[in-house]
Amino acid sequence: MIKPLSEEVLLRHMRDMDIEQISKATIRQAVSLSSSLESILGEPFSRLEIGVPGLKACQEGIEAQKRALDDGIPAKYPSIEGLPALKNAASKFLKAFVDIDVDPQCIVPTVGSMQGSYNLTLACSQLTPGRDTMLYIQPGFPANLTQANVLGVRHEAFDIYEYRGEKLREKLESYFATGRITALLFSNPNNPTWVCLTDDELRIIGELANKYDVIVLEDMAYLCMDFRNDLSHPYQAPFQPTVAKYTDNYVIMLSSSKIFSYAGERIALVAFNNTLFKRRYEALRERYGMARLGQCFIHSFLYAASTGTSHSAQYAMAAMLQGAVDGTLDFVKDVSEYGRRAKIVKDIFVKNGFHIVYDHDGERPIADGFFFTAGYYDMDDETLMRALARCGISAIGLNTTGSGQYGIRVCVSALCTDEDFRRLDERLTLFAQNF
Amino acid sequence: MIKPLSEEVLLRHMRDMDIEQISKATIRQAVSLSSSLESILGEPFSRLEIGVPGLKACQEGIEAQKRALDDGIPAKYPSIEGLPALKNAASKFLKAFVDIDVDPQCIVPTVGSMQGSYNLTLACSQLTPGRDTMLYIQPGFPANLTQANVLGVRHEAFDIYEYRGEKLREKLESYFATGRITALLFSNPNNPTWVCLTDDELRIIGELANKYDVIVLEDMAYLCMDFRNDLSHPYQAPFQPTVAKYTDNYVIMLSSSKIFSYAGERIALVAFNNTLFKRRYEALRERYGMARLGQCFIHSFLYAASTGTSHSAQYAMAAMLQGAVDGTLDFVKDVSEYGRRAKIVKDIFVKNGFHIVYDHDGERPIADGFFFTAGYYDMDDETLMRALARCGISAIGLNTTGSGQYGIRVCVSALCTDEDFRRLDERLTLFAQNF
Repeated sequence: MIKPLSEEVLLRHMRDMDIEQISKATIRQAVSLSSSLESILGEPFSRLEIGVPGLKACQEGIEAQKRALDDGIPAKYPSIEGLPALKNAASKFLKAFVDIDVDPQCIVPTVGSMQGSYNLTLACSQLTPGRDTMLYIQPGFPANLTQANVLGVRHEAFDIYEYRGEKLREKLESYFATGRITALLFSNPNNPTWVCLTDDELRIIGELANKYDVIVLEDMAYLCMDFRNDLSHPYQAPFQPTVAKYTDNYVIMLSSSKIFSYAGERIALVAFNNTLFKRRYEALRERYGMARLGQCFIHSFLYAASTGTSHSAQYAMAAMLQGAVDGTLDFVKDVSEYGRRAKIVKDIFVKNGFHIVYDHDGERPIADGFFFTAGYYDMDDETLMRALARCGISAIGLNTTGSGQYGIRVCVSALCTDEDFRRLDERLTLFAQNF
Repeated sequence: MIKPLSEEVLLRHMRDMDIEQISKATIRQAVSLSSSLESILGEPFSRLEIGVPGLKACQEGIEAQKRALDDGIPAKYPSIEGLPALKNAASKFLKAFVDIDVDPQCIVPTVGSMQGSYNLTLACSQLTPGRDTMLYIQPGFPANLTQANVLGVRHEAFDIYEYRGEKLREKLESYFATGRITALLFSNPNNPTWVCLTDDELRIIGELANKYDVIVLEDMAYLCMDFRNDLSHPYQAPFQPTVAKYTDNYVIMLSSSKIFSYAGERIALVAFNNTLFKRRYEALRERYGMARLGQCFIHSFLYAASTGTSHSAQYAMAAMLQGAVDGTLDFVKDVSEYGRRAKIVKDIFVKNGFHIVYDHDGERPIADGFFFTAGYYDMDDETLMRALARCGISAIGLNTTGSGQYGIRVCVSALCTDEDFRRLDERLTLFAQNF
C-alpha cells in the first residue's frame, strides 16, 4: 500500500518540468511527470490519460497488409483518390452499419481522421467568402482546436453540458444565424465524455444545417461503441445513429484506429454525402481551377498535404471493412471489452465518492465505453489532479477539453487486468481518505 | 508503325475532357487524355510524364515492415517524434552520405516529403511577423507551389536558367533584401531539370541565408543520384553536396520514395540543423506555448496534420537507412539504373533533333538521372505537346514547372525495356518527319 506523495515532492517535479498548472499541462508533459513520479512512488501510475487502443490490432488487417507488401505495393504511389477495393468496402460498410448510401467515389482515405479533420477545416474555411468560422461542440478532442489554430482558421466552441435535447436548437442557431459558420464538428460517441447524441439531437443538427447551409463534420472514431444497443449486425437495425439521416450537408470521418485497433498505421476515411461531394463552389474554382468540393478536396487539399495515405495500410483497411460487412470480423464484439472495463472502473470511482459529470443522454444514463468523465464534489481540476497525482493517478483535466465543468477524463484503454483495477481502487481509496 | 493521329481527333478528345491547353492540363487530365488516345492509336503511349519509381521496392524495407506488423505495431500510435531506431539510423545516414552531423532528436518522420514541405512552409510563414514569403527556385515541383496556395502563404519564384553560378547571388539577394523571405526551397538534384547545384552555388545560397537570416529547405528526394560522381560509399568522399556545409539555417527533406523505391508507404524525414531545431521564436511561443522551432514543428504542426507517420513504415525506413550505412544495401547502385536509361533516352531525343534545355551545371554537362528537359528548336510547349501527343508521346510542359523556357520534362522511370526505347525512337522519328 503506497502513501500519498508530499505536496512538496509534486511541486518540485512540476517545477523541474516547467509545469505551472498540472491541469493545463500538455499530454506530453503529463506523461513525463507521471513517469518521474513513478520512480519516487516505487510503483507504476494508474494511467487514465492515455487514449490508445488497449486491444490487439485486427489480424485480418495485418495479413492483408503483409500480402500487399509481398506484392511490391511499396514501390507504387497510392492513388490519391484511394484504392478502389477500399472505397468499395467502405461504401458497403457505411450501408451495413450506418444505413446510409455513399458512393465509393465520394470516399477517400486520409492519414488518420486527423488529416481528415485538418483538411476539412481548411477546405470549409475557403468555400464561401465571409463563411470563415468553424464551430466545435465541446467537450471535444483538443487537437481539433489546435488544427484551427495552426491553420489560422477562426473558430468558436460551446460546452454541450447545458444544451442537451431541445435546448441544443437555440444554442446552435445563435451561432448559425451569424452567417459566419461554415462547418460544425463533433464526435459521436464523444471523446472525452462518451456523450452519445440522441436521434432528436442529431435531427436538430441536421435541420439547422439545412436551414443555414452549414456542413456537418461527424467524427465516427468510436462507431458502434454505444453498447447500450447491439449495433454489431451488418445490414440489421439498430444502426449507428448519424446526422446523415437528417441532412445531405454532411461529411463523415471513419478511423481504423479504435474500431480495428489500427491506430499505428494512420489510416482513416472521409466520406462525403453524394450531393455535397459534387457541389460547386465558385471560390474553389477561382483558387484551384476545380469547382467541385470532392474533387478539389482530393486533388488540391489531400494532394498537397501528403499525396495520399500508406498504400499497404489501404489494403489492410479494405480487408477489415470487408470482413465486418461479411460478418466474418465482429469488431463490435472485440471493442465491447472497453464497455466491460468502463463499468468496473466507473463503479470504483463512484464507490470512492466520485460522480459522473456528463451522465445522461436524454433519459438514459450514459453508455459504458472508451471514456467517461468523473468529478469529486466541487473540487476544481487543478486541486483534483494534484491530489490524484500524489496518489499515483494521472488523467486529463476536463478544462483542457473545452468543458466548463470540474472533473477529469478517464480513459479505460490502459486498464487491462484485475491487478490494474485493484491498484486503481486502492489509490482512489487513499485519495478519498486524504483529500 | 503508327501514323500520327489527326489534329481533329486530338482536339475532340481534349474538348471531351475539358482541356483547353494540353500544356496546362493537370497530370490527372494528361493521364486521362493519353489513355483515351491510346485506344485510337491502338498501341500504348510512351509515357514520359509519370514520375513514379520504376524499380522494385527495397526488400530490406519490406521484410522489416512485415516483422513490425507481426509484432502488433499497428495497434500502437507511433511516437510523434518518430521511432528512435529510425531517428538514430537517419542521423548516421546523413553522416555517411552527406557528411553532416544532425542529432537524432532533430530528425522527425513525415508522411512523405510532401508533408514535410507542407508543414515547413506553414511553420516558416509563422516565425517572424513580416517575414511571410516563401521563395522557390524554379523549375521545380509544382506541388510545392500548390502547397503555398492551399495554405494561403505568400510566395515568389524565379527560373534559375539565367542565374547559374555567381549570377545566382544577385538574383537571390534581390528577393532576400526585401526582408520578407522566410525560407527558400529547392531540390537538389532538381525535379524537373536534373540541375545539380554546384558547390559554388550552394555556398552562395548558404552565405545569403546567413546574411539575411533565411531558412533553406533542401529537398534531397534524389540524394546521391548525380551519377557523375560515385557517391555510393558510406563515410567516404565524395558526398552528396549540400547547403548544410555553408549555413546552419537549413532543414533537409529526405524521402524514401525514390532512393529506396518506397513511394507507396509515404514515409520521409525532416532533419533540422541542431542549432535551428532549438532556436526560439517569440511568435511560436505566443501562438502555441512552445518557442523552440523543432519542438513546435513536431508537437503543433505535425501533430495537427496527421499525428505521426505509419508506424510499420518507420521500421522499414529504419532498416533501409541502417542497411545503407552498414554497406549491406547499395541503394546508389540500385537507382543508377535511372542514369543508364536517361543516357539512352537522351540520345534518342538528340538524334531526332531535340536539344537538352537545362544542359550544364557550371562547366559540366548535366548528369543522367531520373529527369531531363528537352526542347525542339523554338517550338512552344503547346505546339510541341500537341504534336507529341499525336505521335503517341505524353510528357509534362516546362511551363507548368515554373520554367520560362520552351520544352518538356522527360521522366525515364516508366521506360524499362528495349521495346520501350525502340517505340520511343520510332515515334520521335515520326514526329521529326511530320512537324
